[in-house]
Amino acid sequence: MHAPFVLAVDIGGTKLETAIVDAAGRIVVGSRSRRATGRSRDRDEVVAALRDSVAQTLRAAPEGVVAAGIGSAGPVDLSTGTVSPHNLPLLRGLPVREIVEDAAGVLTVLRLDGTCIAVAEEWLGATRGSRVSMSMVVSTGVGGGVIADGTPLAGASGNAGHVGQIHVHTGESRCAVEDSTLEAVASGPAAVRWARERGWDGTSGEDLARDVLRGDPVAERATRRSAHLVGQAVASVATLLDLEAVAIGGGFSRVREDYVDLVRRSVAENVLFSYAARVRVARSGLGDEGPLLGAAALALRVGDAERTSAAP
Amino acid sequence: MHAPFVLAVDIGGTKLETAIVDAAGRIVVGSRSRRATGRSRDRDEVVAALRDSVAQTLRAAPEGVVAAGIGSAGPVDLSTGTVSPHNLPLLRGLPVREIVEDAAGVLTVLRLDGTCIAVAEEWLGATRGSRVSMSMVVSTGVGGGVIADGTPLAGASGNAGHVGQIHVHTGESRCAVEDSTLEAVASGPAAVRWARERGWDGTSGEDLARDVLRGDPVAERATRRSAHLVGQAVASVATLLDLEAVAIGGGFSRVREDYVDLVRRSVAENVLFSYAARVRVARSGLGDEGPLLGAAALALRVGDAERTSAAP
Repeated sequence: MHAPFVLAVDIGGTKLETAIVDAAGRIVVGSRSRRATGRSRDRDEVVAALRDSVAQTLRAAPEGVVAAGIGSAGPVDLSTGTVSPHNLPLLRGLPVREIVEDAAGVLTVLRLDGTCIAVAEEWLGATRGSRVSMSMVVSTGVGGGVIADGTPLAGASGNAGHVGQIHVHTGESRCAVEDSTLEAVASGPAAVRWARERGWDGTSGEDLARDVLRGDPVAERATRRSAHLVGQAVASVATLLDLEAVAIGGGFSRVREDYVDLVRRSVAENVLFSYAARVRVARSGLGDEGPLLGAAALALRVGDAERTSAAP
Repeated sequence: MHAPFVLAVDIGGTKLETAIVDAAGRIVVGSRSRRATGRSRDRDEVVAALRDSVAQTLRAAPEGVVAAGIGSAGPVDLSTGTVSPHNLPLLRGLPVREIVEDAAGVLTVLRLDGTCIAVAEEWLGATRGSRVSMSMVVSTGVGGGVIADGTPLAGASGNAGHVGQIHVHTGESRCAVEDSTLEAVASGPAAVRWARERGWDGTSGEDLARDVLRGDPVAERATRRSAHLVGQAVASVATLLDLEAVAIGGGFSRVREDYVDLVRRSVAENVLFSYAARVRVARSGLGDEGPLLGAAALALRVGDAERTSAAP
């Protein structure tokens, strides 16, 4: 029997991506396909783009795929196979599992993109060898996924892992809910906003990265603050779930070389119990491929189960 | 075969308790035994008290017990079977699993008391019928346990569920780590301290309960604030773990009739996603028996597994 290939699908806020992945987690050369999503695209356009991208990727498959996996921006609803990405209101309730299953003709598994990232990091990345981990992304948004006692957590509807919406305290002011959840205060756009309110005149995470290198004090503080607040949230989760390992990825986590070191230091300052202080905090080893590789890992498990139950 | 009986042990900060529990979760009349723990007791005294209490309870068993379960104040270390209760420094590393196994002569399972509470509430209490829940206690301390996707979470060393040490924001001031974790701001003693700093002259949770009924405005605010902060933490965990149900228990949660209603309202104000807003928040159905009944549930599972594997 050949090593199986699977179809992996990553549905994000600005693009969707499809690829063929092999059992070792390698993306088959030439199989990757991308389409824009984004607020301006309506539902029919996104459905067509998804079908089209799947078809294009499947034509590049060395042989038939055994299953498909989708990692999607959330919230998701696993019971119906639908997604309602937070920043894409037009897609509310999009039945992506059915669309991909129909386009690819194979059993398809859907999970939150954060869950996929956690699975991918445990399979091939920074949390390998652990049984209890969180993997998170700090970028335009802040998201993540949790592996608890060896199992990727889904939660009641598939949304476990949304670490960007847990509360942190900035120690800065009386603030609204929107100003006290991690994503609202520590994402790339939040750091840019914080810096601009203090007189810095850049407009992007890239500008912050450049100005940190130049020694700009506001850029320095804005990026340090983001890492500090991420560390506070990691401390809460490490305490609540008794984590062994945390992987930190996403574009904004690369805003400064020592970002992950600053997160690690903040975790140490923000835990009260020694068991939680033992958590290993490391930079993601997967760049931005986490959702795609995790979706592939989940598809490979489904494919395995299928083939086993179909065996004579 | 008779319905099995198990030995249940609850090791807390001020007392330890042992009892015989049957397969329906009933405590056998006359089997309950209590001994003081507390800061003034040294290690040898507590070991003797534990052995003694186990022996007394076993004499009241209608027949032999098939297994024993221990729920203990944490942190715990499941790999070694030891406990190091936060407020009992003299007991650091106490090998309670070995002590009970030796005294009772049966296989013994140890878990964090919060884990036991979560198991008990799911078995017999307020989170029955859910697959993803948190059960928590608001008392001198704040603790809890989590059932995720049907399984009681242990975490790397057994300490998953320590919800009292996750961060919240009071919106009140720049504050130290110790002033921003849930237990530090929302426990009974924290509410008493907060009220006293504002001119209230009582000294206990009972005094607060009395003065809430009398319409004292500071007692009213101090207890409302506790419920609000508990709700904020529940909102964080409901978001992170996509919880279906939360049980709230513990002495201080009874400080006012509407405490759980206030928690529920705060959860609604502090979640950003609709999946998390669906979480069911209910008052614990088990009074203070959670740790004992959950320890019994875990022992019954161990006993079942033993008898199954020993069957001819």
